Amino acid sequence: MTVSLLERLIEAFRVLPGVGQKTAQRMAYHVLERQREGGARLSAALAEAIERVGHCERCRDFSEAAICPVCASASRDRHQLCVVESPADRLAIEQATDYRGLYYVLQGRLSPLDGIGPRELGLDRLVARLGEGEVQELIVATNPTVEGEATAHYLAQLARQHGVRPSRPAHGLPLGGELEYVDRGTLSHAFGSRSEVP
Amino acid sequence: MTVSLLERLIEAFRVLPGVGQKTAQRMAYHVLERQREGGARLSAALAEAIERVGHCERCRDFSEAAICPVCASASRDRHQLCVVESPADRLAIEQATDYRGLYYVLQGRLSPLDGIGPRELGLDRLVARLGEGEVQELIVATNPTVEGEATAHYLAQLARQHGVRPSRPAHGLPLGGELEYVDRGTLSHAFGSRSEVP
Ligand SMILES: [Zn+2]
Ligand SMILES: [Zn+2]
Repeated sequence: MTVSLLERLIEAFRVLPGVGQKTAQRMAYHVLERQREGGARLSAALAEAIERVGHCERCRDFSEAAICPVCASASRDRHQLCVVESPADRLAIEQATDYRGLYYVLQGRLSPLDGIGPRELGLDRLVARLGEGEVQELIVATNPTVEGEATAHYLAQLARQHGVRPSRPAHGLPLGGELEYVDRGTLSHAFGSRSEVP
Repeated sequence: MTVSLLERLIEAFRVLPGVGQKTAQRMAYHVLERQREGGARLSAALAEAIERVGHCERCRDFSEAAICPVCASASRDRHQLCVVESPADRLAIEQATDYRGLYYVLQGRLSPLDGIGPRELGLDRLVARLGEGEVQELIVATNPTVEGEATAHYLAQLARQHGVRPSRPAHGLPLGGELEYVDRGTLSHAFGSRSEVP
């Protein structure tokens, strides 16, 4: 039996996070019944973003340009550098806080058990950045998980080696939780009352 | 400020049912971080389905061909016709039951307050179908809502006028459900139409 376009569409929706068979069906039927125009917009937006959104050369966040708008901005404080695990974490901080410094997106975390060390994480680029002498404070905003904490510890040492003051957002973030899903108020408070790593 | 491709993608995801700003962000980041290939497949499947999936001339369900595989099948019982409100309802019945008859998808329900009468619902096509003489039983599987019930009542009359036997799926307590959590309407109906234990 051949697979119909409808079945293929349902299967394709399952690539999205948290979308199982039932939800995928509901999405496919919804689009075909009531949202063909919106569905066409989604199709085009997906294709264009996948083709044209890459990573910023400076901060490794998503960017259409070689240097993202935040890194290129003249109004951001270049003495503060905030390290996060993922682009979603960076977005959460940008939306919830009034932080005006720069970012560095690790695109992962140290995980020795999975064979992800400083080299695999490309930390040499962060080291080079710290070596430029512009950064004065390294805000380590990795997730409060075991691996995130270990990564933070490593990054704090790295910062000190380069004469950069390391700091962490205040605790208040739920342990074991993912930064991306913390409510804005908690995140904003925690970020604002970050303390210097002694 | 111009809207970035990423922002446009997040906005586009919100066309999907049950997807708010936060979930749309998560979907966009997930696709760009980890599922570019799957995202490209979704984009293509969407575009193709939107362009090529229309409606079957016989049953009005979604179909790529003028006549859908179910209507065209020689192995379905042509004496039974099941009327549903939407393609999703048809799919639910097809997946959950061993029904082997044919379907007719109303693509709506009678709703006099919204100006949707028999003509607006295109019931003349269903009438013509009943007039063909092939259908012996009309299974009216509209939703158990006020409008669905009114539609069912109308369709049952229509069937009788054409010498076709109307029937409805049984309503009552869901199997495996806790009586305590069943909604009042269902419980009341189930209690009122209780049957003697033989
Ligand atoms: Zn950047
Ligand atoms: Zn059909």
